[in-house]
Amino acid sequence: MITNSSLTELTDQDAGSGRGRLLQKGQQTKSAIVDAALGLATQIGIEGLSIGAVSEVMQMSKSGVFAHFGSREELQISVIREYHHRFELEVFYPAMQEAKGLPRLKALFSNWMKRTSAEIDSGCLYISGAAEFDDRPGPVSDALASSVKTWLSALHRCVVQARETGHLSELTDAAQMSFELHGLVLALHYEARFLKTDKSLDRAKRGFEHILLRYGASPTLRV
Amino acid sequence: MITNSSLTELTDQDAGSGRGRLLQKGQQTKSAIVDAALGLATQIGIEGLSIGAVSEVMQMSKSGVFAHFGSREELQISVIREYHHRFELEVFYPAMQEAKGLPRLKALFSNWMKRTSAEIDSGCLYISGAAEFDDRPGPVSDALASSVKTWLSALHRCVVQARETGHLSELTDAAQMSFELHGLVLALHYEARFLKTDKSLDRAKRGFEHILLRYGASPTLRV
Repeated sequence: MITNSSLTELTDQDAGSGRGRLLQKGQQTKSAIVDAALGLATQIGIEGLSIGAVSEVMQMSKSGVFAHFGSREELQISVIREYHHRFELEVFYPAMQEAKGLPRLKALFSNWMKRTSAEIDSGCLYISGAAEFDDRPGPVSDALASSVKTWLSALHRCVVQARETGHLSELTDAAQMSFELHGLVLALHYEARFLKTDKSLDRAKRGFEHILLRYGASPTLRV
Repeated sequence: MITNSSLTELTDQDAGSGRGRLLQKGQQTKSAIVDAALGLATQIGIEGLSIGAVSEVMQMSKSGVFAHFGSREELQISVIREYHHRFELEVFYPAMQEAKGLPRLKALFSNWMKRTSAEIDSGCLYISGAAEFDDRPGPVSDALASSVKTWLSALHRCVVQARETGHLSELTDAAQMSFELHGLVLALHYEARFLKTDKSLDRAKRGFEHILLRYGASPTLRV
């Protein structure tokens, strides 16, 4: 059993050797556990995650799962990291392909809305997790908040660039605009997912256009 | 032990009689239980509420609490109704004292923000509850959604009145504007409560001004 759960790199010497193959297999198993745990967390919440629940889904022994994480908290934090990684892959990196300024900001928001809509059936860990952990300080709450803040900083940076490139008014308060954009996504998630309100996605899109106009983007632009 | 938990009115004959006093005492006890259960729900969530947990807080027997509600679900729904009642008392009714149109809409939003800020320490049942129940259909989820929808309809009606009185542009899409306002309150709750971001309340207020201007309110108005 591989117990070194923080191992992420193999040395050249290890790779290809018997020990290397064992380590690789250990990493694969760990990834598969995180994947199953993430699926579970979107259904029952991060707080509901336990070594026992995950081992049941994985059809592994509790001690087998435990050996990869060492604690329930480490399992929960690994799930948050994996969620963050997937969020970046879907929302952040594709938008970085667009030109700095408005094209990138539009792509970022559009990907964010798409992901939020796709999550209507499975739930967003950043939103459900905040409700679970906002009154439970500790390493899991910290990991979640830090993950969300990393994302909101990227959004903020993108707004600043749009101001610097002259696509938005030079008076644009980037923190204010980011706050308003965050609100649209939260309303989309709440109204579409919980209230099942029709047209929530259209409203988020129109809200985005209103905010862009407010901050001086050309009125001819369409999202 | 009073077991008729749905009794809300006493007949003249009952009142003042021994039976009347017993019924009144039963109602008082039930109210005290709901009060304690609501306090608990803001800490541990509606889903965490159980007859056992509430009886512990009340220092009553489980069967004593059970006799007033009959089921855990009925206890949860009673807590949602009580929350709704308090929300109306703080947010809705005081705003109804203001003149129809913009004064009332401003009061409504201002009270809503005030309540959301006051809840930064204790949590908002409408927000945390949505995250808990958005994937758990059933009578508790229905009661919560119906309660939120009642409130959002009141907000929507208020926007329509502001349009009809000419305080907002006649082109105002009331559903769109309500969606955007909802987003500001959700962002305020998320960023102030979970991320502990400074100035979230100021940002929600400025966001409100931006939305009012967008929908044709006079630029001189201040919130």
